[in-house]
Amino acid sequence: MLETVVPVAISEGDVKTRAGFRDRLRDAAQLANSLVCVGLDPNPDRMPPHIWESDDVKGSIVRFNRGIVEATADLVCAYKPNLGFYAALGLDGLAALVETRELIPSHIPVILDCKTNDMGDTARGYARGYFDEWDFDAITVNPYMGEDSLQPYLECEGRGVIVLCKTSNPGSGDFQDRSLGAGERPLFMDVAARAADWEGRYPASVGLVVGATYPSQLAEVRAQCPELPILLPGIGSQGGDLEGAVSAGVGQDGLDLMVSSSRGITYAGTGPDFASKSRNAAMELRDAINRVRLGAYAQDC
Amino acid sequence: MLETVVPVAISEGDVKTRAGFRDRLRDAAQLANSLVCVGLDPNPDRMPPHIWESDDVKGSIVRFNRGIVEATADLVCAYKPNLGFYAALGLDGLAALVETRELIPSHIPVILDCKTNDMGDTARGYARGYFDEWDFDAITVNPYMGEDSLQPYLECEGRGVIVLCKTSNPGSGDFQDRSLGAGERPLFMDVAARAADWEGRYPASVGLVVGATYPSQLAEVRAQCPELPILLPGIGSQGGDLEGAVSAGVGQDGLDLMVSSSRGITYAGTGPDFASKSRNAAMELRDAINRVRLGAYAQDC
Repeated sequence: MLETVVPVAISEGDVKTRAGFRDRLRDAAQLANSLVCVGLDPNPDRMPPHIWESDDVKGSIVRFNRGIVEATADLVCAYKPNLGFYAALGLDGLAALVETRELIPSHIPVILDCKTNDMGDTARGYARGYFDEWDFDAITVNPYMGEDSLQPYLECEGRGVIVLCKTSNPGSGDFQDRSLGAGERPLFMDVAARAADWEGRYPASVGLVVGATYPSQLAEVRAQCPELPILLPGIGSQGGDLEGAVSAGVGQDGLDLMVSSSRGITYAGTGPDFASKSRNAAMELRDAINRVRLGAYAQDC
Repeated sequence: MLETVVPVAISEGDVKTRAGFRDRLRDAAQLANSLVCVGLDPNPDRMPPHIWESDDVKGSIVRFNRGIVEATADLVCAYKPNLGFYAALGLDGLAALVETRELIPSHIPVILDCKTNDMGDTARGYARGYFDEWDFDAITVNPYMGEDSLQPYLECEGRGVIVLCKTSNPGSGDFQDRSLGAGERPLFMDVAARAADWEGRYPASVGLVVGATYPSQLAEVRAQCPELPILLPGIGSQGGDLEGAVSAGVGQDGLDLMVSSSRGITYAGTGPDFASKSRNAAMELRDAINRVRLGAYAQDC
């Protein structure tokens, strides 16, 4: 266990009183001394066989997620269920998503990774469903449709809107890297600039998704947006380099970064001890990240 | 009632035997002699008061949608429920979405408007949920993450993947109009060019969303993609001009266009006669579109 990077002067009780998503995320990260965001992506093909019962889809998922959450809640700054894994299993899967959200302690922000993008009444519908009905603290959104399509989410006070910027997949360059010419900024940097502007108007509400697989682009985004929380997928199975990505992505006070890990933590074991294996994996990741934070922090001082 | 624009030589029984989404859509359009796509977007605030019972969300939505579908099934080429309106109402809303899909006659393609975009296992999860579990014939997708993010949907044989290109909202230009320089093509035309390429590899699978509010951009897209079905939102309350948009967007044989209308049809009446009012509105729209098609068709001959 490493030393605390940033002095912790808060208790669980304090956290809920802060309004903005960014504030809540920073508090949770300080409380756990961790930038780990665990992706809760249930997959029947990978789940421990003793947990998965095909005639009880909802119960199986909830049992699995409860095991992971109970084993890791003191080690993370956020949880991030991805809608696609629940939608894959139909209405029972979605019922499990709702129960999963409810079993997470209220001081830990929960991000619904839904990459939503729509306009007007429809966007207000998603906001009503994902924020009001299901009480997620933040959602991921796709910026393709432009600013007015994201405004209904930005207007939801206290909720986070985490905008896809430079995604971790191999084909993310197809459109995101499109530049206006030699030396001009690519599309994803336009998105980053807009996000910084939205943050000015909706403080503590906006975040960005930048893949760990693109560390130099991540550094560019961080330089453009020093105050935005960045959700960092792509370490582990996608091959992103943890040290390079954390160094490039970490924000003010060694915070404002969510290092997303799903499979590497939740499927660390598939036996009856899957939960304690996931705890070990989360601890290892937390410590590996903190070694980099500690180095970056020491250099700053 | 207008004359048939394109001779109908098929029966309902034939339609299901065609494999590709585009083929099924063309057949359905010919059978109904209609390019009308009805958006099934239940909104408690607009729904007939005698239908909406707040303690029976699922039943209310299904009763409403059944009324609309029964009144309009012979007048449309497709139905398009938008996920956001169902997600707004939580699990009951989503249960109503599943029942709504089931009550639509099998020869009419049903498009889930979900504007999804994710990668790898997650994208496969959505495909499993929306295509295999819920049996939608097509989904709308957002292209921001690039080609590999859409491949899992394109690989689902017989299903349609309708890609956001130039959306109908006022802010669609924020990123979609971004051009590489004077005289160079904007982002949405890059998306159109890619979509034409995907169609070459996954025949009869790909479509595009282009807003009726941007008729000159629609004409550019149609010229680039002569064979792709185009989903056209933005007429009616959004102010798109029907005649200009249909002229610019209609494809080969006066087909390959889905003129989307939600509120204008489904909320044409709010009394006990809401279904027959919706039928009248659908008929008027079909005929208004067909007058333009007939004109375009006559000019071609």
